[in-house]
Amino acid sequence: MTSPPFEFPKAIVFDVFGTVVDWRGTIIEEGTAWGKAKGVEVDWGRFADRWRAGYRPAMDKVRRGELAWAKLDVLYRMILDDLLGEFQLALSAEEKDRWNRVWHRLRPWPDSVPGLIRLKRKYVIATLSNGNVSLLTDMAKRAGLPWDAILSAELAGHYKPDREVYLMAADLLGAGPQQTMMVAAHRSDLEAADACGLRTGFVSRPDEYGPGGRADKATGGDFDVVASDVLDLASQLGT
Amino acid sequence: MTSPPFEFPKAIVFDVFGTVVDWRGTIIEEGTAWGKAKGVEVDWGRFADRWRAGYRPAMDKVRRGELAWAKLDVLYRMILDDLLGEFQLALSAEEKDRWNRVWHRLRPWPDSVPGLIRLKRKYVIATLSNGNVSLLTDMAKRAGLPWDAILSAELAGHYKPDREVYLMAADLLGAGPQQTMMVAAHRSDLEAADACGLRTGFVSRPDEYGPGGRADKATGGDFDVVASDVLDLASQLGT
Repeated sequence: MTSPPFEFPKAIVFDVFGTVVDWRGTIIEEGTAWGKAKGVEVDWGRFADRWRAGYRPAMDKVRRGELAWAKLDVLYRMILDDLLGEFQLALSAEEKDRWNRVWHRLRPWPDSVPGLIRLKRKYVIATLSNGNVSLLTDMAKRAGLPWDAILSAELAGHYKPDREVYLMAADLLGAGPQQTMMVAAHRSDLEAADACGLRTGFVSRPDEYGPGGRADKATGGDFDVVASDVLDLASQLGT
Repeated sequence: MTSPPFEFPKAIVFDVFGTVVDWRGTIIEEGTAWGKAKGVEVDWGRFADRWRAGYRPAMDKVRRGELAWAKLDVLYRMILDDLLGEFQLALSAEEKDRWNRVWHRLRPWPDSVPGLIRLKRKYVIATLSNGNVSLLTDMAKRAGLPWDAILSAELAGHYKPDREVYLMAADLLGAGPQQTMMVAAHRSDLEAADACGLRTGFVSRPDEYGPGGRADKATGGDFDVVASDVLDLASQLGT
């Protein structure tokens, strides 16, 4: 391994939705199984995309102060309620709760768990997601994601890309911004982390939005590390 | 196993210093090794007791607003600086930093890791300590404590036994107070948790303060569960 053009960090914090877990694939898989059992036909790819599309506008309302702080579980539920109308799906209260918790059950990409196990040997690894703490905790427990700590926008009372979230993570982990690396498959998340003085690692997830989707791309030099997946990130960070 | 007189919780949060790890034994052990290498004679049991004795008054200053919020690392360092004068020990800046981080390196009691591994199969398990997040994260990583999440007074900006800490934990884990159990070897911690509506589990640590020390005792009925150690707690909670 050649030396990287930066000092290795002490702590690495990860975006989760899309970067570590495959939200779209999991929703399509659960939706398909549910639809089959119920005899209902739905374009689950479109359903997943529409649900995820509501995420940014809902959080932006919180970020602008138009909506009081609410956990991501609550925001996803507001979007789901609209979506059920749009897709003309009638769900029981119990089914709605269960459906909304699909975000707690998202599957990791195949390289995520083995890559994190390698990184954990050398670094403190934590989530830094807009997902709430219980969502991230449930997900990790189910999927075997070996986090050292669960950090969330919820702890800052701010959603990414607000500065407060990145600075909180560097402070809580005791590493300071310069020795904390943010890892994400999304350029905007890394650009906001960089503006706070954190190191940045891009992980490519070409299939996040499905075949032919609008996944972000990066080339060497765009960020401190540009990796093809979490295993490649582990290699580039010397683990 | 007979049925317990309460519903099983969903989440269990643990006091750490004394309950899960042996702060006094670890400080004596590290102090003895350091003193031998340096040719310095110190009563390390007394040193550990004096350090720990400064903890409550320092936190109470924060709790009363006489001192701005400060991480426990900072409070322990203030106490250490006084203690080094009292024990007439001259340490380099580097040694002071290393000594202060002994709290990040505390050893678990022998039953803690196997007991937590059993509890983790059925429950969400998390810290709920006055130790700061990086202290608890470093300790868990080193000792193999299998927490699902690291929760700390630091996240509430309040020290236990302030209500904010217990209520925050129940909210973050999504279980609500009634389905969250606080576990500690200290009655005052459990009494404060109980006043917030949490379930309570006492774990006996007769040697926390050394032989003949002032460890808290409890008998059946004092709390929802009274256990002899974490393995016994795991058994009583059906794992």
